[in-house]
Amino acid sequence: MNSKSVTMNFGSGGREMHQFINAYIVEKLKNGILEKLDDAAILENFPNKKLAMTTDNYVVSPIFFEGGDIGKLCICGTVNDLATSGAKPYAISLAFILEEDVPLDVIKRIMDSIVETAKEADVKIVTGDTKVVEKGKGDLIYINTCGIGFIDDGANLSSHNAKPGDSVIITGPIGNHEVAMMKAREMINFDVNVKSDVAPLNKKIETLLTKTKNIHTIKDPTRGGLASALNEICEHSKCGIRLIEKDIPVDREVRAVCDLIGFDPLYLANEGKFIIICPKDDENSVLTIFGPSAKVIGEIIKDDKHLLTLLTKSGGIRKMGMLETIQLPRIC
Amino acid sequence: MNSKSVTMNFGSGGREMHQFINAYIVEKLKNGILEKLDDAAILENFPNKKLAMTTDNYVVSPIFFEGGDIGKLCICGTVNDLATSGAKPYAISLAFILEEDVPLDVIKRIMDSIVETAKEADVKIVTGDTKVVEKGKGDLIYINTCGIGFIDDGANLSSHNAKPGDSVIITGPIGNHEVAMMKAREMINFDVNVKSDVAPLNKKIETLLTKTKNIHTIKDPTRGGLASALNEICEHSKCGIRLIEKDIPVDREVRAVCDLIGFDPLYLANEGKFIIICPKDDENSVLTIFGPSAKVIGEIIKDDKHLLTLLTKSGGIRKMGMLETIQLPRIC
Repeated sequence: MNSKSVTMNFGSGGREMHQFINAYIVEKLKNGILEKLDDAAILENFPNKKLAMTTDNYVVSPIFFEGGDIGKLCICGTVNDLATSGAKPYAISLAFILEEDVPLDVIKRIMDSIVETAKEADVKIVTGDTKVVEKGKGDLIYINTCGIGFIDDGANLSSHNAKPGDSVIITGPIGNHEVAMMKAREMINFDVNVKSDVAPLNKKIETLLTKTKNIHTIKDPTRGGLASALNEICEHSKCGIRLIEKDIPVDREVRAVCDLIGFDPLYLANEGKFIIICPKDDENSVLTIFGPSAKVIGEIIKDDKHLLTLLTKSGGIRKMGMLETIQLPRIC
Repeated sequence: MNSKSVTMNFGSGGREMHQFINAYIVEKLKNGILEKLDDAAILENFPNKKLAMTTDNYVVSPIFFEGGDIGKLCICGTVNDLATSGAKPYAISLAFILEEDVPLDVIKRIMDSIVETAKEADVKIVTGDTKVVEKGKGDLIYINTCGIGFIDDGANLSSHNAKPGDSVIITGPIGNHEVAMMKAREMINFDVNVKSDVAPLNKKIETLLTKTKNIHTIKDPTRGGLASALNEICEHSKCGIRLIEKDIPVDREVRAVCDLIGFDPLYLANEGKFIIICPKDDENSVLTIFGPSAKVIGEIIKDDKHLLTLLTKSGGIRKMGMLETIQLPRIC
């Protein structure tokens, strides 16, 4: 393979495609399953439990940013989505849409990041696909991952399960991912030291579920941010949520950027934070595992209108709907 | 939602995205699982067997063609890939990358096609994702599907399992999908009546496996065609394959197009045909289920060089490698 960048032949189904896939993908991901390269991977000896399944397309732009890249993002997004159901990640599929002419060095960096993150999250990539589109019909690299996992008996988590009286916890400060993306797009013309929070959280959830099975809801506040995710919970669980603004953790520099640009941190995307909803008695298990940056930020209330409301720092009550317009496109 | 086409807001995570997804996707796919819209779908009561997992990105261009469209293609491709492992399809994920400004009528047609094909293949879509990219960063619609299925005890199918003496069967005439794509791209300036063969084959494989568990390999000759797929089997099973050219079924009009354009039908993509490899004694089970268009086209032989060779109509022996250059890009 003499080319230094992706050619249309890499998507042909022929010899060059096989050489590319073997050299750049299979070689990195060998695990006893993936390298069989059958049309479907075969998995054995899985636990006979409830199964969770999730998928996401990743179209983030740019593909490299402070704190991560599209490779880290796709693995974290998938194991985190599985963890929201209480599932331990079991297997992931990985499918690329490459734009013609993408430098192979870019693929190499992304693959290294995928391998490292999958190792950290302790999940196997078992099957995949690569397609190539003409220059101008994509944007370097789009990735789809689909994940499956198994749920321990006793865990019963869903955005439909929040109950009046439950505490609403956020596992750390919000907005860092979207501000890091603004920085990567050079929308901020002053120096801010903000990194994306992208991280795999599944191990922490596994530990949490060994301590208590009494967690009602875990949700990943990505696109649309904390406020949109909480609105979904209100709608699905047919309840209201009352947030306390002063208790919501936002890093100083994220707040400064929001103040200057006019964005609301409650609508900024996160890639390494969970909303966790549980009875008050189980708060401490969550706070202990996620450390001092995790905060109780509100509670579930009975409300026939299923509203999310914010008790503001100045003592007012503000209704917070879903994100109305896009703050920043293609942040994941 | 007043817009008649996709806007960047449809990928925002906010209100308009939720409205779009509910109206255009969830409403069509309701099945007791998908409409929960949790970050991961939860599946229960699955059979405790071997699990198969497969994924594909679909970037076919154009998205509508004689005999099918990208919606039909994505469901067929996934259930067929599962069937190659002997798995009965159990659940599918569905993820879109939409280009800004795609008319909603297009999405509607594709969704109708997805629903109809999923019904025919008897598979549930349980989870999904929608991302939107700016105009000029995609091509109307790309789809990823990931499928999981379960394999009955006793079935042991893989491209690694072909054995010398086995028969090589093709379940029908080859090349129709790729010729239909040439027609859709107006590369053929004469009238040909060729439709894509895209079809779900999983039900037939389920029937076959109730008659015999003695099938060694099933393979989907898509990109790269029959010859590339058989080369993969030679490599994985460490054997040779001898094909008999006169026995390979090719429709008259497909052959005419190949003769005129200079394409070889053995390298043309198919979307509704299987290569099935089994002991001679099991040939009849396959031929009975797939009907008179299925043909025995060769046999597995011992060959340390793992070559695919063709006994030509004129009596010569020709080595057939993998597809060297692309015949037609983006055919699936």
